[in-house]
Amino acid sequence: MPKMVYGFGDGRAEGNAGQKDLLGGKGANLAEMTNMGIPVPPGFTISTRACNAYFDARRRLPEGLESQVRKAMRAVEKSRGKRFGDLEDPLLVSVRSGAKFSMPGMMDTILNLGLNDEAVEGLARSVGDPRFAYDSYRRFLMMYSDVVLGIHKGEFESKFEALKKKRRVTDDTALSAKDLAGLCTTFKKIVAKRTGKPFPQDPWAQLWGAIGAVFASWDNARARLYRRKYGIADSLGTAVNVQAMVFGNLGEDCATGVAFTRNPSTGDNALYGEYLRNAQGEDVVAGIRTPQPISARRGGDDSLESTMPEAYAQLQTIRKTLEKHYRDMQDVEFTIERGELFMLQTRTGKRTGVAAVNIAFDLHEARTIKRDEVLERVEPEMLVQLLAPIFDPGELEQARNSGRLLARGLPAGPGAATGAIAFTAEQAEKLASRGKAVLLVRTETSPEDLGGMVAAAGIVTSRGGMTSHAAVVARGMGKPCIVGAESLQVDEKARRLRVGRKTLKEGDLLSMYGTTGEVLTGHLAPHPSEIQQVLVEGKLKPADSLLYRRFARLMSWADKLRRLKVRTNADTPRDSAVARAFGAEGIGLCRTEHMFFAEDRIMAVREMILADDERQRRRALRKLLPMQRKDFTGIFKAMDGLPVTIRLLDPPLHEFLPTTDKQFAALAREMGVSKKVLLEKAEQLHESNPMLGHRGCRLGLTFPEIYEMQAQAIFEAAFAARAKGVKVLPEVMIPLVGSVPELTRLRERIDAVAGEVQRKRKQKLRYLVGTMMEVPRACLVADEVASEAEFFSFGTNDLTQMTYGFSRDDIGKFLPAYLDDRILPRDPFESIDPDGVGSLVRRGVEAGRGARPGLKIGICGEHGGDPDSVGFFHRTGLDYVSCSPYRVPIARLAAAHAVLAERGGGGSGTR
Amino acid sequence: MPKMVYGFGDGRAEGNAGQKDLLGGKGANLAEMTNMGIPVPPGFTISTRACNAYFDARRRLPEGLESQVRKAMRAVEKSRGKRFGDLEDPLLVSVRSGAKFSMPGMMDTILNLGLNDEAVEGLARSVGDPRFAYDSYRRFLMMYSDVVLGIHKGEFESKFEALKKKRRVTDDTALSAKDLAGLCTTFKKIVAKRTGKPFPQDPWAQLWGAIGAVFASWDNARARLYRRKYGIADSLGTAVNVQAMVFGNLGEDCATGVAFTRNPSTGDNALYGEYLRNAQGEDVVAGIRTPQPISARRGGDDSLESTMPEAYAQLQTIRKTLEKHYRDMQDVEFTIERGELFMLQTRTGKRTGVAAVNIAFDLHEARTIKRDEVLERVEPEMLVQLLAPIFDPGELEQARNSGRLLARGLPAGPGAATGAIAFTAEQAEKLASRGKAVLLVRTETSPEDLGGMVAAAGIVTSRGGMTSHAAVVARGMGKPCIVGAESLQVDEKARRLRVGRKTLKEGDLLSMYGTTGEVLTGHLAPHPSEIQQVLVEGKLKPADSLLYRRFARLMSWADKLRRLKVRTNADTPRDSAVARAFGAEGIGLCRTEHMFFAEDRIMAVREMILADDERQRRRALRKLLPMQRKDFTGIFKAMDGLPVTIRLLDPPLHEFLPTTDKQFAALAREMGVSKKVLLEKAEQLHESNPMLGHRGCRLGLTFPEIYEMQAQAIFEAAFAARAKGVKVLPEVMIPLVGSVPELTRLRERIDAVAGEVQRKRKQKLRYLVGTMMEVPRACLVADEVASEAEFFSFGTNDLTQMTYGFSRDDIGKFLPAYLDDRILPRDPFESIDPDGVGSLVRRGVEAGRGARPGLKIGICGEHGGDPDSVGFFHRTGLDYVSCSPYRVPIARLAAAHAVLAERGGGGSGTR
Repeated sequence: MPKMVYGFGDGRAEGNAGQKDLLGGKGANLAEMTNMGIPVPPGFTISTRACNAYFDARRRLPEGLESQVRKAMRAVEKSRGKRFGDLEDPLLVSVRSGAKFSMPGMMDTILNLGLNDEAVEGLARSVGDPRFAYDSYRRFLMMYSDVVLGIHKGEFESKFEALKKKRRVTDDTALSAKDLAGLCTTFKKIVAKRTGKPFPQDPWAQLWGAIGAVFASWDNARARLYRRKYGIADSLGTAVNVQAMVFGNLGEDCATGVAFTRNPSTGDNALYGEYLRNAQGEDVVAGIRTPQPISARRGGDDSLESTMPEAYAQLQTIRKTLEKHYRDMQDVEFTIERGELFMLQTRTGKRTGVAAVNIAFDLHEARTIKRDEVLERVEPEMLVQLLAPIFDPGELEQARNSGRLLARGLPAGPGAATGAIAFTAEQAEKLASRGKAVLLVRTETSPEDLGGMVAAAGIVTSRGGMTSHAAVVARGMGKPCIVGAESLQVDEKARRLRVGRKTLKEGDLLSMYGTTGEVLTGHLAPHPSEIQQVLVEGKLKPADSLLYRRFARLMSWADKLRRLKVRTNADTPRDSAVARAFGAEGIGLCRTEHMFFAEDRIMAVREMILADDERQRRRALRKLLPMQRKDFTGIFKAMDGLPVTIRLLDPPLHEFLPTTDKQFAALAREMGVSKKVLLEKAEQLHESNPMLGHRGCRLGLTFPEIYEMQAQAIFEAAFAARAKGVKVLPEVMIPLVGSVPELTRLRERIDAVAGEVQRKRKQKLRYLVGTMMEVPRACLVADEVASEAEFFSFGTNDLTQMTYGFSRDDIGKFLPAYLDDRILPRDPFESIDPDGVGSLVRRGVEAGRGARPGLKIGICGEHGGDPDSVGFFHRTGLDYVSCSPYRVPIARLAAAHAVLAERGGGGSGTR
Repeated sequence: MPKMVYGFGDGRAEGNAGQKDLLGGKGANLAEMTNMGIPVPPGFTISTRACNAYFDARRRLPEGLESQVRKAMRAVEKSRGKRFGDLEDPLLVSVRSGAKFSMPGMMDTILNLGLNDEAVEGLARSVGDPRFAYDSYRRFLMMYSDVVLGIHKGEFESKFEALKKKRRVTDDTALSAKDLAGLCTTFKKIVAKRTGKPFPQDPWAQLWGAIGAVFASWDNARARLYRRKYGIADSLGTAVNVQAMVFGNLGEDCATGVAFTRNPSTGDNALYGEYLRNAQGEDVVAGIRTPQPISARRGGDDSLESTMPEAYAQLQTIRKTLEKHYRDMQDVEFTIERGELFMLQTRTGKRTGVAAVNIAFDLHEARTIKRDEVLERVEPEMLVQLLAPIFDPGELEQARNSGRLLARGLPAGPGAATGAIAFTAEQAEKLASRGKAVLLVRTETSPEDLGGMVAAAGIVTSRGGMTSHAAVVARGMGKPCIVGAESLQVDEKARRLRVGRKTLKEGDLLSMYGTTGEVLTGHLAPHPSEIQQVLVEGKLKPADSLLYRRFARLMSWADKLRRLKVRTNADTPRDSAVARAFGAEGIGLCRTEHMFFAEDRIMAVREMILADDERQRRRALRKLLPMQRKDFTGIFKAMDGLPVTIRLLDPPLHEFLPTTDKQFAALAREMGVSKKVLLEKAEQLHESNPMLGHRGCRLGLTFPEIYEMQAQAIFEAAFAARAKGVKVLPEVMIPLVGSVPELTRLRERIDAVAGEVQRKRKQKLRYLVGTMMEVPRACLVADEVASEAEFFSFGTNDLTQMTYGFSRDDIGKFLPAYLDDRILPRDPFESIDPDGVGSLVRRGVEAGRGARPGLKIGICGEHGGDPDSVGFFHRTGLDYVSCSPYRVPIARLAAAHAVLAERGGGGSGTR
């Protein structure tokens, strides 16, 4: 008969932390803690092997299990000095599921198992508290009926609420023992009616029922779906933990609490937590009473340190034991029953980015963990919190609790911001010019709003996804941004914002936390991050910031490890400089069109677009040439010695059109034509699906003079920069290539322009001509494309749009439902879809390198800054990723994680 | 020394028709005709081997070539009794290129080579016609300078025009011998000035120059590009044909002409052609004088039969010889020099669809060709001409020549139509209801225009491509349609149409030929095809139409041969019946949304779309259920015993929205809400890229009640039809699937509805649930998709849109330029792109069948009716293609051709 039950208690356990396959995560940790000499209520774990045997036996408890359980129970009885099933002083137990990975759908906790109509009276007598006894029985009846007998707990809750209403009380504790005893009778009647049988009074029958229910829950639809989705084998099975109950609510010498072994917000190396006297664990979470701090420094006389100094001292010892053992900060739950401390759970504690860095370095300095482990302990995404301005967690929580949370949207650009609402870019610029902090709130943004976005401290839109215009531009600027806050009804014309019955007007104060996607009414003070103050604002010296020095060290370790290079998407000399400060190793995407919207050139751009013929178009382009040349010169200077990939004009021309009548009139004057003619021409540019329309290289081929001007500006700028001692490495990138002749024709033209500029300067210039890989077809014929392209850069934004047939601008209509229903595991614009889009990338890389060995390949979509995607690109063998300036450090760390994951060391690529 | 020169003349040739690799197409045919005893001017062909040797020797004429050419020239001299280089009665020759495949960019003809300043005088004397001699010299100087010396012929032409202007004449023939002699002097001066050398006077030097120029032209950019595009090996090389000149312009006993061995319009088995007396070949083509018919039946006294009976009789004999030899109708060129007939060229003649069928069957009945050859001789696309109403070719030509050609567009729906212009659907219906023939002319059409399209005899749009709404719907109806006639400026509001300075108003007469894409002013009578009269209109009995009987026989032969099944895309019982008459073997695509626009249901559809909640939506859907059920019942009946694939709702909902204020008001009344509320809701449905938006299964998942209603209608209709003795095979198709969970969820719902309907009827029903493969991602994860889909149907329209990133509605802005510049070989919406889109189809088929062996796979995009695409689908192993009713016969024949091509027998799949 195989061993199926593993006991623990009194400092000895049959299992250990290494046996998560067999005992589940919870069971293995309880065994481990017991072995470490930490006080844990005794109990036993029924192994996953028993679960598999249960299913093999067609959902019957396997042979031999009963005797093993009875034997283990006897050990528990001995330890606690009570008998399971005793009617006078019964041993009560909890029953919990515990698989290797926690997953939704699995059976929840059952507490107080072992009570029945007689034992409840015995319990009342033995603890001298009938109210406690009937409250425990009431809780047990409800949980067991819900979880094991399948009667929805709503039925019980409504009876409970009815009784409270009758007694005119709101608090559970205000009900008397008699009330609760009556409620137990009512609950049992419901069970009898719904199941046709009385509630099981035999504690052993209760236990077998609970064990069977845990096993059965392994096979329910939700858990199965979850396992299928995350590739967890069905054969793993779940374990069952049966453990003696301990009570924190037996009087003033009892308590229950949760604690972190270090401060999870700052990483401060001190016990940090809260507790409640005379309370059960769930009361701390439910927030009925306000818990008190554990340490005297925070809580004074009400602290655990002051009221129960012995238990506090014991907790401090346990804290050290756990940290030494697990080599990381722990999140623990504990109960004090009549002065005796019991640890109920320990697990690795969640923490902020700042805390993660500080804890990892503190542990490293204490020689507890090694360099690679420091890297692993900091999730790349956590760096966002280090870089972005933040709200104080306490202040934020208080604002939430006082009803100031207005809406939630997608966290498109991390960081905290507060300011007066502006509904138009003009208004934002106006208020900002008066020194006011402004939040730009719009339905969505367009390139026209750029000035307002620059002026605003943060941007909120009611529509759009993580790669909408607002999101992409804001991230590029490192600005807090929330998009798709669908509950906001923004009326730009009326300059009004409504949510339900609340209305806000222009100028009203608003706060936003792009890190979490929360929009709050009123003012909440943002605090700039230390790293920002050192790197971007220059207000703080590295010597004055420990956090910065640790960040810089982390980055340098990551850089030594990683194989992927990290470039940035930057369109201006200023962005380039910021990105370089963040460690960018070149520009992977410079979008020339972003320069077109500047006030000094949009008129010339519009002239070009609405030109009647090539001659007129060339005249307009001549005006643009010196401006583009100047921009490129500045970028080349900022990226001295590093490669700069410049993408030629990409968006459809109508994006640049005037939008107001006034603008049309001004343009007509400038061009010397009638407004009507211009309006007609603009109308002709309308497209049904601009995303799939006349843009990218299609423009370059139909209006060759545009790309010729841009190429000329690039090459002349290269010489201009070189004249000032700058080392330039220009890479000209042609967008939206779908078939090889597109590339062939354009490359010929660009080479011709380069030749001419070189002849004029009488100097040679090394440059590359390559292509965006963003049209599915380009990936399918990548071998042919590679014969003409000197580099590939995957544009995974558009590639995702076309591979899925999802318009980024419209996906908001169904994406939330898709994510809720788990039709999509994640937003594919946020993290690359490895099976579909990813397979095109793989095919492109293989075929491309097959045709041109050593082909330089990068990626410049938004995925370049997503850690999981960076892992994918590492595995796919790309040379570099490119992302917005503020995500460069994240990509650097993610690229290092990818190497660690490859070595089997975990990291972000192992999902 | 390898043999490089192959002589022909006097009934004996060294080569033959089988040596196209060596002698090129032209040379091989000249040899063949010579061997057949047909009078061909003697000459010789320099082989492609010599061409390769030329390039191997770095563009020098290969060793040994000179002596072989000189020897061959002696044979020609002997045959013609003249000497090359003679100054008194010189032998003149033509030099032409001739590769295996004719291709653009190759060197053109040089005539009269061998003339110089002295020989021209000798020629004048020997023929007794100085004008003739100087005209010949003038032509030679111009051609040689242009083609060999690289001086643009424009330079010569301008001198020529200047002289004519000076002499105040318009006709070349009005210039005197002296004028022409002066022109020759001018020409030689230009050459001396531009090349720094006098024009070569030595005939041999002229010849070597011409031969080298032919070889060199093989390597020019245009020819290289063409070869790369069509996969023609560079190593093939070109041959050079040198042939004695014969003259049709030496007097009234001379003539030149072109002829077909049968009538190319009707197939009538009689010589058919035209000639000019005392003229050179190019004069017939140039149209300076009107040529006369060859046969007396057509041309009376001016016919060749009447004026030169001997030559005519000889031509008749040659006609028989050629047809017997080539086993097909030939297109020949001939010259009569002083009564002596010479054949200059023979090639297979182009013909209309009617002629192709008649010629093939006539030849078959004469036991000249076999069944498979009959099938091969009729190109599938030719059947369009048999099926569509036609214009008389003569009448059409006359209309063109009299300046009535207004515009050209894309030939979206074949056939001829004429009628009064209507600019709106309403107007079209109004005029049609008064019995007027109407052409609907619009910028573009939308589903709203359906009534007008039904009413119109033909549709013309100024925008859109081959798969625009107008094109797809018109083809479905078998209606003539021209789209993308960009030069038409349609102003629907002003009810006016402008082209350049021409303006047409509503009600003006217009004619259109959808077969060619021509729009003409005024009335031109269309003639219905015989096949239509038998199959669709029932006005003609099969016994009364030989053409129909031949067509039917051709189809039955094709059906026996082909492996691909052919289904139809049909949305109504009427279309289904037409398609079945044309041989459809089921419905491959029934678009349920096309039914939504009918007047009796659009209101309910709009109610559904603008519903505030599920309850309101269900109420509207209940109104639609009986209507959809009725439609499906009718379709099942029409397709008794055949499978019917019904696609659930696909387009974005905003396509169904009201467009006018009046419609919104009516709807608001019906729904009992304010118009403002409706307008707001409608605004919310707006999408930036509807093609990639909230449509297809995305609708089905977010509004499950819509698909549930449609499924219910399908299954109830199946039972209703079955109750009337109809055998039903319903296949439910889910559109726009990109990831497997979409399909899983929807399939569960459809199965649930099917289960319920079956329970109610207490009967079982066999049905399939499958998916459109139209999102690239679905093809990339086809193995997973196949695990949930019982059939695949490739939606290659959308698949092409997403794989190329081309919006069908917008492609008109750059597609013409792409086709002109050969960036795309063909419109990928017209014929499938085998490398890109096709590779996704292949991957889908392989992965799908890998996961589910024997998976039924079809295609229901517009490509299902394109012969080349049908060949591709055959090779890819699909089970069926589905196309619009009027293209079913074309697909049937194309599927047979695909089998023949597989056997190595040619056909349409061999491009």
